[in-house]
Amino acid sequence: MKIKIINPNTTQAMTDGIREAALTVARPDTEIVCVSPEKGPVSIENHHDEVYASVGVVEEVRKSANDGFDAFITACYGDPGLYPAREVAAVPVIGIAEASMHLATFVGHRFSVVTILPRWKAVMEDVISRYGLEQKCASIRCTDMEVLEFESDPEKGARELYEESVKAIEEDGAEAICLGCAGMVEFTADLEKRLGVPVFDGVTAAVKVAEALVDLGKTTNKNLYFNYPQKKEYIGYPDLLG
Amino acid sequence: MKIKIINPNTTQAMTDGIREAALTVARPDTEIVCVSPEKGPVSIENHHDEVYASVGVVEEVRKSANDGFDAFITACYGDPGLYPAREVAAVPVIGIAEASMHLATFVGHRFSVVTILPRWKAVMEDVISRYGLEQKCASIRCTDMEVLEFESDPEKGARELYEESVKAIEEDGAEAICLGCAGMVEFTADLEKRLGVPVFDGVTAAVKVAEALVDLGKTTNKNLYFNYPQKKEYIGYPDLLG
Amino acid sequence: MKIKIINPNTTQAMTDGIREAALTVARPDTEIVCVSPEKGPVSIENHHDEVYASVGVVEEVRKSANDGFDAFITACYGDPGLYPAREVAAVPVIGIAEASMHLATFVGHRFSVVTILPRWKAVMEDVISRYGLEQKCASIRCTDMEVLEFESDPEKGARELYEESVKAIEEDGAEAICLGCAGMVEFTADLEKRLGVPVFDGVTAAVKVAEALVDLGKTTNKNLYFNYPQKKEYIGYPDLLG
Amino acid sequence: MKIKIINPNTTQAMTDGIREAALTVARPDTEIVCVSPEKGPVSIENHHDEVYASVGVVEEVRKSANDGFDAFITACYGDPGLYPAREVAAVPVIGIAEASMHLATFVGHRFSVVTILPRWKAVMEDVISRYGLEQKCASIRCTDMEVLEFESDPEKGARELYEESVKAIEEDGAEAICLGCAGMVEFTADLEKRLGVPVFDGVTAAVKVAEALVDLGKTTNKNLYFNYPQKKEYIGYPDLLG
Amino acid sequence: MKIKIINPNTTQAMTDGIREAALTVARPDTEIVCVSPEKGPVSIENHHDEVYASVGVVEEVRKSANDGFDAFITACYGDPGLYPAREVAAVPVIGIAEASMHLATFVGHRFSVVTILPRWKAVMEDVISRYGLEQKCASIRCTDMEVLEFESDPEKGARELYEESVKAIEEDGAEAICLGCAGMVEFTADLEKRLGVPVFDGVTAAVKVAEALVDLGKTTNKNLYFNYPQKKEYIGYPDLLG
Amino acid sequence: MKIKIINPNTTQAMTDGIREAALTVARPDTEIVCVSPEKGPVSIENHHDEVYASVGVVEEVRKSANDGFDAFITACYGDPGLYPAREVAAVPVIGIAEASMHLATFVGHRFSVVTILPRWKAVMEDVISRYGLEQKCASIRCTDMEVLEFESDPEKGARELYEESVKAIEEDGAEAICLGCAGMVEFTADLEKRLGVPVFDGVTAAVKVAEALVDLGKTTNKNLYFNYPQKKEYIGYPDLLG
Repeated sequence: MKIKIINPNTTQAMTDGIREAALTVARPDTEIVCVSPEKGPVSIENHHDEVYASVGVVEEVRKSANDGFDAFITACYGDPGLYPAREVAAVPVIGIAEASMHLATFVGHRFSVVTILPRWKAVMEDVISRYGLEQKCASIRCTDMEVLEFESDPEKGARELYEESVKAIEEDGAEAICLGCAGMVEFTADLEKRLGVPVFDGVTAAVKVAEALVDLGKTTNKNLYFNYPQKKEYIGYPDLLG
Repeated sequence: MKIKIINPNTTQAMTDGIREAALTVARPDTEIVCVSPEKGPVSIENHHDEVYASVGVVEEVRKSANDGFDAFITACYGDPGLYPAREVAAVPVIGIAEASMHLATFVGHRFSVVTILPRWKAVMEDVISRYGLEQKCASIRCTDMEVLEFESDPEKGARELYEESVKAIEEDGAEAICLGCAGMVEFTADLEKRLGVPVFDGVTAAVKVAEALVDLGKTTNKNLYFNYPQKKEYIGYPDLLG
Repeated sequence: MKIKIINPNTTQAMTDGIREAALTVARPDTEIVCVSPEKGPVSIENHHDEVYASVGVVEEVRKSANDGFDAFITACYGDPGLYPAREVAAVPVIGIAEASMHLATFVGHRFSVVTILPRWKAVMEDVISRYGLEQKCASIRCTDMEVLEFESDPEKGARELYEESVKAIEEDGAEAICLGCAGMVEFTADLEKRLGVPVFDGVTAAVKVAEALVDLGKTTNKNLYFNYPQKKEYIGYPDLLG
Repeated sequence: MKIKIINPNTTQAMTDGIREAALTVARPDTEIVCVSPEKGPVSIENHHDEVYASVGVVEEVRKSANDGFDAFITACYGDPGLYPAREVAAVPVIGIAEASMHLATFVGHRFSVVTILPRWKAVMEDVISRYGLEQKCASIRCTDMEVLEFESDPEKGARELYEESVKAIEEDGAEAICLGCAGMVEFTADLEKRLGVPVFDGVTAAVKVAEALVDLGKTTNKNLYFNYPQKKEYIGYPDLLG
Repeated sequence: MKIKIINPNTTQAMTDGIREAALTVARPDTEIVCVSPEKGPVSIENHHDEVYASVGVVEEVRKSANDGFDAFITACYGDPGLYPAREVAAVPVIGIAEASMHLATFVGHRFSVVTILPRWKAVMEDVISRYGLEQKCASIRCTDMEVLEFESDPEKGARELYEESVKAIEEDGAEAICLGCAGMVEFTADLEKRLGVPVFDGVTAAVKVAEALVDLGKTTNKNLYFNYPQKKEYIGYPDLLG
Repeated sequence: MKIKIINPNTTQAMTDGIREAALTVARPDTEIVCVSPEKGPVSIENHHDEVYASVGVVEEVRKSANDGFDAFITACYGDPGLYPAREVAAVPVIGIAEASMHLATFVGHRFSVVTILPRWKAVMEDVISRYGLEQKCASIRCTDMEVLEFESDPEKGARELYEESVKAIEEDGAEAICLGCAGMVEFTADLEKRLGVPVFDGVTAAVKVAEALVDLGKTTNKNLYFNYPQKKEYIGYPDLLG
């Protein structure tokens, strides 16, 4: 099967890291294509970034509509562009937040999300509410680090993720940790070993969910809420829905 | 005071209707500017439309940041772009859905949203959940009409809005009706008279909420969740956040 | 327009303070009448006080039914008597708690109520639940001060409100503060300046909501839940509903 | 033990019916005193009636504070005055709605309330929400009958209660019926027989809950939320809290 | 009336303590029979224990089906086997958790459960959710003690229950304490005296609820959810449902 | 990898059908072992059946603890014995209800469960609540058929599942259907084709979730809630936890 992963930001190093992570869990017969949009923010840390990133996600899904992909994955933990991309695609589109949160519920009583800057917490709340998972979420714990800082200062990243995860476990009752940024995938294994609790990275979780849905032959219901966008004029975007 | 209303779609006739409606309730000392984005869909009826409309909303707020507006209003009932616009602006940004739903709670036990096509219902649910108003919403009732059809066939529009409102009142217990599309403003008065229950249009409601907040001297808390977007590079959008 | 504000307690100094506050935000063409009931508790701090205050509120609305008021405001933060007053009146009746809480949602992610004695918290919970605003309320924080103490010892009042507000912001994630007592209106401006977050007083908020509803021509739905009380005999209250 | 039941309305025939019902289930060693307030509405069917009835309830509790009662019961299904009465009393105060709803959960998956006029539904919703029982309530079903009509036309009363109960069972999944008015007690036994499901009357349920709490030696926690009302001046009510 | 109490574990000393506690509150005309299953765990502290204990509970109810009992009580705070026992019995079956939690709501704003080992918390959450009482539960506080340790080291038991109860009251706002294990009954009176808040033991509460339901002549609705188990073959359990 | 599927009932034909279904989606390198407990009910349709089935499930997991299985699946839609089995096992244990419901959320806005007899609905509600998925569940629709009837009269089974699914889609807004019984797996493909919406069978979904978790190297957090059962004496079950 062929899966296209879209890193909604435009930082190539992150795209490379995501591809690499995906390949560690993809089955031998799963082909992974991993890209960034041509345009958009180098990182996604607020609602404004999400708007522009969503355009990029939708474009990447649209341009590959006829390339035989069996599934798409959006690889930013706010799942920006997920629902519009699901409208555009005929095949399943999986967000890394929804994939990892759902899987986390199978191995622990409640999960916590450990993530970037405090302002990202509001986005996380929205995402969790959209998937109806409030009751299974013990807490959202933020570090004080920006997305790209996890790459530039991985030592600090490892330390802060560990510290916040410990608080989530000890104070909030988390039994699984979901890492709330696609750029944290490299910390997963080490963190899990040190914490002694399951730690989920969104990218690898989404690859497995995508494989599962494709194997089961299930795809998005196109009858109503995620039906293709109606054909209509977009001023300034000739032929967008043509 | 000066309020800028942004019709997130690019249909000039709707922009004109919105301006006209706003002027009917604006105080004499309130100056109304009403515009459409330069680019974007001619109507907003799904998640895909919302993505592109959000870009337009954000651009319109940004370009007027130094024009002395006291408040902005986003005038599509899905409130697309509201939260990112709130990040961009220093002054209050009001969505027509949130304005009308909140005001409706003051005059009836529960409100129902009566709106366009059935697929719009999922967007309405998201909006209501985001504002935490599920308990005050009796139901979401959809017609089978597209946004622009309300202009091209107002007779059908009036009939369907009436019929769905009656169901909301009689079957769902609605005590107020919120019209779930900026293009329905012209039906408000007549519908209210026929139904005998308060009917809220989003545009006029938002004007009054904006005036109220400005009079009270309140604006968006810029410390965390709606802080200005961090300065960062946007590939392909030179100087966007410069 | 003419608005009658009813201070549900019988402390004239508070009534004067409420009138003064209302006048600072009322539009030039808004006439404010502010009164106390003839009978009732000098302050409202528990369910028992609320019962007697409610009688006073209802009486004040009833006696002015034909005096041409465009709206009534009940000015105690437990909103005592609000729903029965809404039954009695033909025009909108606005509670200061509901007004300030709803408006607070437009400028911050969540609000906290900072208020009087700890036992008042249960009343606040009931009020917030009645308006369906639990999800937008970060916390209820109590001082250890009685209502009238805020007047007799304003320095202590300012200090305690500040300290509890800081906790609400830093520990509970509040992005707006609602002051949970009509007697706190004088602290609003200073507190907002020191905290750097929007602080809402109920009285001024209610004046603006009342103006908004009157401008929009909306009033309470009188068909069912807030219909006029049925005519019936009240033993010991001759002619009450005559 | 001695229990004082307060019928919050002033219709003596209802007070007599309530006493009679209570005596059918009271233990031999339980003494029942059943009264009406001196003043107040002849029936309770809206928020306005509840305000005046609450005053009567509080007065009846206060005047018996030193008469050796082991518990008080408020016998109107909106439980008006329950919380203020709980503040005034040293011994348990039980509402007939809370008593019957809680007991109903022990014998069926969910209960429905079958009650008087449609406008009473909003009061019922508030009551159920206050006790945190939304999840156990299948529905609230209203007849079109006033309180006193159940006495004047019992045949119609029996018919309507039966019809609404059947709908609650068949359409809403109710496994127990709670009769939402103290004046319905006489219909309980016959209705239960015809329906084949447990039917709870509030008065008899409250007697048993009161006996249970007294036997267990439990009374209201007086430390905070239901502490005695603070001593304070009540203008126009000399010595009220003296 | 005759009530059979089933201690779901097989520790005779606990069964004796439960019987003794029940007798302190049972009415003179209430006959108490208190037993343990023949087989099963000596204490119940996790889901695995609950499975085997449930079999014991069901067997004890079934074998007494024709012995003229008016009610059954299951006396472990996870209420294991309660719903299947309710299917098997014609008369009410009351769990000690549901009984004490419901009764606690009548005398305090919210209750906390103070109980055994931390892992028991997940079971408590399930129980509270099943009864729809989340809103009335302030917190679940765990000691670090096993069930049988409360008997072997009562001094430590008293100390830990006191300490956790104080935290529940001061930090979580509990106004009543529910002791989350049938083996804690002996601590109730002393704890209540020291804390100054109502403390509920499950066994005594359940006896009173059972008496109340029997007096009211109410029993489990047998039409649907708690209907008798359908007759069917149980491989390896000959004649189980014969 | 090696997965052991446990059909909690003792009907061999169902066990065979489950194995067959699992094999249709298992990856080539996944070895499926599918068994029934030695003892227990021939079908599971109420709480009583679930108690005995749970014992069987736990025994089957325990006896294979050292057989090198990478995951266990419990294959009855009430997920009986799931949590205790999760305590017993070191590797993931997946319930077919939780697996299919979680996967269904990826391809439709809300799912409905279509299942057996009406009395099973209460069990379904409990399961959905336990997984925190209430918001994603549009409805639970019951046929009037017993578990084994789906095998004896597949024509009727197909017809009733279709009819109830249509109602779930048209009246309740379901965008995916979850078949609420392991014995319905054979109807999945045909039903999906006729309905034009994704239809999930629990067995196949659970196989894919198990494979996903094993591939990701995740297993149950054994630190607290799903820790191994403490060693203790089980009267009548010698060596059970030895």
